[in-house]
Amino acid sequence: KRLNKVREIDILNDSLTVESGVILADIQRIASEHDRLFPLSLASEGSCQVGGNLSTNAGGIQVLRYGNARALVLGLEVVTAKGEIWEGLGGLRKDNAGYDLKQLFIGAEGTLGIITAVTLKLFPKPSDSQVALVAVTSTQAAIDLLSRLKMALGEQLTAYELMHNNCFDFAEQSMGHSNPLPGGGWRVLFQADGQTKAGYLCEPVEAVLTDALEDDLISDAVIATSLSQAQQLWRIREDQAEIQQRTGAGVKHDISVPISKIPVFIEQADTALEAAYPGIQLCTFGHAGDGNLHYNPIRPKNWTDDQFKAETAKINRIVHDIAYNLDGSITAEHGVGQLRREELGRYKSPTALLMMCTIKQALDPQNIFNPGKIL
Amino acid sequence: KRLNKVREIDILNDSLTVESGVILADIQRIASEHDRLFPLSLASEGSCQVGGNLSTNAGGIQVLRYGNARALVLGLEVVTAKGEIWEGLGGLRKDNAGYDLKQLFIGAEGTLGIITAVTLKLFPKPSDSQVALVAVTSTQAAIDLLSRLKMALGEQLTAYELMHNNCFDFAEQSMGHSNPLPGGGWRVLFQADGQTKAGYLCEPVEAVLTDALEDDLISDAVIATSLSQAQQLWRIREDQAEIQQRTGAGVKHDISVPISKIPVFIEQADTALEAAYPGIQLCTFGHAGDGNLHYNPIRPKNWTDDQFKAETAKINRIVHDIAYNLDGSITAEHGVGQLRREELGRYKSPTALLMMCTIKQALDPQNIFNPGKIL
Repeated sequence: KRLNKVREIDILNDSLTVESGVILADIQRIASEHDRLFPLSLASEGSCQVGGNLSTNAGGIQVLRYGNARALVLGLEVVTAKGEIWEGLGGLRKDNAGYDLKQLFIGAEGTLGIITAVTLKLFPKPSDSQVALVAVTSTQAAIDLLSRLKMALGEQLTAYELMHNNCFDFAEQSMGHSNPLPGGGWRVLFQADGQTKAGYLCEPVEAVLTDALEDDLISDAVIATSLSQAQQLWRIREDQAEIQQRTGAGVKHDISVPISKIPVFIEQADTALEAAYPGIQLCTFGHAGDGNLHYNPIRPKNWTDDQFKAETAKINRIVHDIAYNLDGSITAEHGVGQLRREELGRYKSPTALLMMCTIKQALDPQNIFNPGKIL
Repeated sequence: KRLNKVREIDILNDSLTVESGVILADIQRIASEHDRLFPLSLASEGSCQVGGNLSTNAGGIQVLRYGNARALVLGLEVVTAKGEIWEGLGGLRKDNAGYDLKQLFIGAEGTLGIITAVTLKLFPKPSDSQVALVAVTSTQAAIDLLSRLKMALGEQLTAYELMHNNCFDFAEQSMGHSNPLPGGGWRVLFQADGQTKAGYLCEPVEAVLTDALEDDLISDAVIATSLSQAQQLWRIREDQAEIQQRTGAGVKHDISVPISKIPVFIEQADTALEAAYPGIQLCTFGHAGDGNLHYNPIRPKNWTDDQFKAETAKINRIVHDIAYNLDGSITAEHGVGQLRREELGRYKSPTALLMMCTIKQALDPQNIFNPGKIL
């Protein structure tokens, strides 16, 4: 908490150096005051610290365009297990003078060193934004639409979120959010941002949606016509964690697969769980543009929370085996910590695990950094 | 050479898996055949292999927009020092299941393992392109113009190259390229690419240049009106290595500094070298958008090549000390190899060097991989 200083902002280099205890929302604000964007954005941004964001290689809503936390780092200052300070700060965008040591500490969950400061990349603040909610005719249609939007918009496609229709029903029941597109099936919420004149992005977005309607990829769409409407659409997505908690006990997953395999993952996982747990309430949502889904089924209505929680390990096994068999990961953005540590032994190759242990042993031979996490 | 197979292309995942001996130009071609772009682009793309591109974390012309080779990798297959195969391929865009091992092997110049295959990221192929050559009124003006273009174009600014006017004079003398913007001073060659309708990018580019002219950042500009004119402008940049070789012996550098410090780097280095070597011919060029300059002074006209080459170590010392004191790197994209190995001891902290040795020792204890390189 006391490592809370802003050390340097270099606008012509689009970089900002802060200590690791600075709150993420403060970093976003500082960037914005200089007409720049720091794109990392999470539900906890008002309280989480950037050191934690980097140690966990945080993801969030805008990874599709800007990458994970790892992609936003130009340099680090780290305290090593020997108590030395590695001065790896600085605003270089290119540096091939030896191994890229900062990569070791990002996403290592504090097991290899303590990040004390960071030089972050800033981006131009977009001037034009379009948010749309779309009823897709299938999960495959959602992936085809994603591909069309990427071709039409390039990096201007900032976010692409897939949501099961139950997400909207639960939002209405538990928090009173009205459903902007009633009816069954899957929804996609996406956002495009550009440096263009306000409103310019509307044209390519509408063109893609018009074609998608003709080709039966989508059945309906709402394009937000005001900032407040855009925020309303996003609120249904952002409130999902709380909405689902109010709806009943769930088992949470944070899987990723290649984007092309999202439809088959959902089909296999839904089929397996509905067979094992009739009446299970599916309300999958997540960052489809990154291949990352929060696959969080909720208990059947006639089960108690405790009954369902007792099935956690079995449900994890079903869901994670399916993701693994589709070349996926059991933790796309949340990390391993203690929760997924034992499972890692099942899904990581012995070669990978051994390499991880070798690195841990080399950099922290006495296991003083965050013992019991990951490995 | 026999690791030359394309293993998989997954268009909906925008990914391509190839063995490490595949030629870079072939990867570009395969991507293009699927209406995608593989953005890594180098002078040697017709002969270099992707395994080498990754081991050296290659840079090139489009790093400003797409990042170094490191940023283009989704997964790796690597043979370890124990002779095991680490199967780290796959098309995941997000995976926080343990340490991100691929980062260790990218840019390690073959000292930690042998990359045998890679899953690469593909991008939408841009449909609109603008190339312009601009006479800037100073190196500071070049950096200010870069900032304005980034604000106006965002990620659509693909390349931003700074060139000393001597680059054009030498191009005329040694290869007969006519100078599109005669007169003294510095030039900027930049390219913007979008998914927009052909010609759309012209408007924001012209708007920025008009303002820059009024504000005295630039004195003249040529916007290419055809693909062949754009190629002609690029040829003068791309031929610089050969142009400079024909002009006389030079001492090559590949430094980077924060973008904001490019003007002071050039001023300090030019002043120091002109004092030490009166008549030295400066012809600096490079990727200003990445803070990376190829600072390659050529011998005074009345010196012999051999006389000048004998000064290499002294000139390196002058140039690299200046870059270092501006928080820069002595090798932005070319890597360490043997050439810069001894100098690394001067410019890397003992903590960083020790960490590098620790990792090398842990992963390759018998020093069988590319011995004598980097460390």
